[in-house]
Amino acid sequence: MDKDKIHQLRQEVYTHLTEELLPFWTTRCIDQHNGGYITHFDQHGHDTGEDEKSLIAQTRCLYTFASAHRAGYGNGELADLARHGADYLLERMWDPEHAGFYWMTNRRGEVLIDEKIVYGHSFAIYALSEYTLATGDQRGIDYAGKVFDLLQRNATDTHYGGYFEMFHRDWTLKGPGPAGGDRKTLDVHMHLMEAYTTLYVCTGQEVHRRKLLEVIELLVRKIMHPQYGTGIPQFRPDWQVAPQIKFDIIWGWDRFTEDGVKHEAEDNTSYGHNAEFAWLLIHALEVLGISYSTYKDQLIKSFNHAADNGVDWEFGGVFVEGSHAGAVYDREKEFWQQAEVLIGFLDAYRFLGDEKFARAYENVHRFVFDKMILHHIGEWWPLMNREGTGPIWTHMSHSWKINYHTVRSMIQVVKRLDGLL
Amino acid sequence: MDKDKIHQLRQEVYTHLTEELLPFWTTRCIDQHNGGYITHFDQHGHDTGEDEKSLIAQTRCLYTFASAHRAGYGNGELADLARHGADYLLERMWDPEHAGFYWMTNRRGEVLIDEKIVYGHSFAIYALSEYTLATGDQRGIDYAGKVFDLLQRNATDTHYGGYFEMFHRDWTLKGPGPAGGDRKTLDVHMHLMEAYTTLYVCTGQEVHRRKLLEVIELLVRKIMHPQYGTGIPQFRPDWQVAPQIKFDIIWGWDRFTEDGVKHEAEDNTSYGHNAEFAWLLIHALEVLGISYSTYKDQLIKSFNHAADNGVDWEFGGVFVEGSHAGAVYDREKEFWQQAEVLIGFLDAYRFLGDEKFARAYENVHRFVFDKMILHHIGEWWPLMNREGTGPIWTHMSHSWKINYHTVRSMIQVVKRLDGLL
Repeated sequence: MDKDKIHQLRQEVYTHLTEELLPFWTTRCIDQHNGGYITHFDQHGHDTGEDEKSLIAQTRCLYTFASAHRAGYGNGELADLARHGADYLLERMWDPEHAGFYWMTNRRGEVLIDEKIVYGHSFAIYALSEYTLATGDQRGIDYAGKVFDLLQRNATDTHYGGYFEMFHRDWTLKGPGPAGGDRKTLDVHMHLMEAYTTLYVCTGQEVHRRKLLEVIELLVRKIMHPQYGTGIPQFRPDWQVAPQIKFDIIWGWDRFTEDGVKHEAEDNTSYGHNAEFAWLLIHALEVLGISYSTYKDQLIKSFNHAADNGVDWEFGGVFVEGSHAGAVYDREKEFWQQAEVLIGFLDAYRFLGDEKFARAYENVHRFVFDKMILHHIGEWWPLMNREGTGPIWTHMSHSWKINYHTVRSMIQVVKRLDGLL
Repeated sequence: MDKDKIHQLRQEVYTHLTEELLPFWTTRCIDQHNGGYITHFDQHGHDTGEDEKSLIAQTRCLYTFASAHRAGYGNGELADLARHGADYLLERMWDPEHAGFYWMTNRRGEVLIDEKIVYGHSFAIYALSEYTLATGDQRGIDYAGKVFDLLQRNATDTHYGGYFEMFHRDWTLKGPGPAGGDRKTLDVHMHLMEAYTTLYVCTGQEVHRRKLLEVIELLVRKIMHPQYGTGIPQFRPDWQVAPQIKFDIIWGWDRFTEDGVKHEAEDNTSYGHNAEFAWLLIHALEVLGISYSTYKDQLIKSFNHAADNGVDWEFGGVFVEGSHAGAVYDREKEFWQQAEVLIGFLDAYRFLGDEKFARAYENVHRFVFDKMILHHIGEWWPLMNREGTGPIWTHMSHSWKINYHTVRSMIQVVKRLDGLL
């Protein structure tokens, strides 16, 4: 990419971030009455009134404000918004009896689902560590450390390694199948890598470093496909591949057949997840002071799979899912995969120097800016048809779509494009 | 065995336990001046004056008094002696800054070795849980639970499973080789099984049960020889067998060549350890409410290896060590292997009904009672020549030989012989 092009793309991203995206959130998501964040908005940016506050939406929104403040945006206002969210999280969602965070409250803070879900706790560590880094408020890292300790005590599998993921309120393991107690997922282990990275930045503790290294090794050696290096969504406790099923507790709107099983349940990978994994791994390695080359083969496979198979050269953007060998199964365009490949392709370009990744970045960038962003509203369509001519889902936000992917992507893209200038 | 024989053996054990062994300890091991236990006695039962208190000797002695009290011995006196030891352990050996117990103090309680060794912590869990079960003093289980949590946080390997074992004072992992940071051992994992069993009896907590089940599976699937079912002493973190080396921090007087490597470093197993493992596994299964038959093959292999290869039919007793296939390497007679096979052979007899185990029991019983016990002193020779005509080592107690094996063996043997009547 030439410097003029980089500069132009950077300005486009910066303008969207500062004039559209952050204002969308700063102007409407504070719940002044009950504390915490309002996280349900329709395509007009209007509060839909849905009466729930999910652990992941609250923590992701906290992460968003904290990280944007730490990245230099908002003139201090974002730190206040972060503190507002931290107050709710720590005062209303923490279980004082069994420790850990409830999965869901209503807007008033009454507990709707008291289960302890590791996916949500990974975001609690991530957000609370970032919050202390951003604001200096010691409560963040105190609770992030507590959650880390809780996971080590209650969630690790000391036989096969890795973490169990679904627990009752008192941290007893849930049952098998849709209850999720006998499954291990790419999702959880990847987000633990992300969370432990920021935790370690904040604490410098050897045990946080060690557990980060362990989860990286698990991801690379067990969770990535042995041939293709692509993410395998679900496993049995002994790391045998499990058919991808729908859990009772979900953290995304994923497409399953009516019996709760995926089409292609055992040969399914997400281009966006693979690119996200790779850039998160690069970030972790930078924090750890370990050379990229240690995991070079893995990184090349992750990035190539997304760029070679996932990019839609006809209509732009990145597809939802496909096979480990590459063939596309689902050609629609979902917001978070676009957000993550933007960062990933820039890291691939920076790391591998192949113009292919610059072209892939520009392709997705244009799809996002020309078709997916509702510029007059400020946020992104959640899911569009392949052509990008219209939305399939229309909400701007709900419990499973908030600002974490979009804002983080724009912050990280600005940083990377600046680095290329 | 006929009932008369069982009754006669039982009385012999009971008399030794109540008139010789327990009195040896109750009359001399209380450190009235400094608190805790004096644990160094020569062949005359005289205090040798060695100025150290080791974590394992203090915890094992605490276990001994607590378990003997809970088994109905001592008319209450043993509970007082247990409390005396718990006071020292909790007040002088606990590290208030980094948590966990120091490895070694002098008699006055000044720290000599501040490292955190998982082997010692497994005995802390075992002894403190037993102490609460015996006395109701809540401090025991509070600290046992704290140590359990500490191990989950700092010692588990979330990549390959199992536990790392050797840490600095602040729980950073020690280096490789003799420092032990890159080794996993049968010893530690077996004693964690033993400790978690009693912890679970005391708490009934699901997480304690789950981690007990995990360590059992690790022992059976990874640590026992895949063909012979015998214990492999040392492993790399990824469970590849490691040659048996001497660690900087030791918990026994083991024979190594001058370069710190065992003869037959990669084909070495202990008859006594295998029998101990098997009876501890049976006890764990009873506590868990799981049928013996779940691990029947394993139990048969463990017991048969000891009975078929380890028993000295010429001079009596059980040999120290041999190969996984069975051949004997070391024909001397050490105290703790005798103590453990006595329990193990009775469990094998109870479980498998094979008279071979009754004969093996009687063989070792006679060797112990006729040759190894110094009846006029009260304790056992630590190591004898094969013939049992004289001791090789002569101490009655030091940091690595205390009353845990001998007293536990006598208590458990009385219980099992009573069960056969």
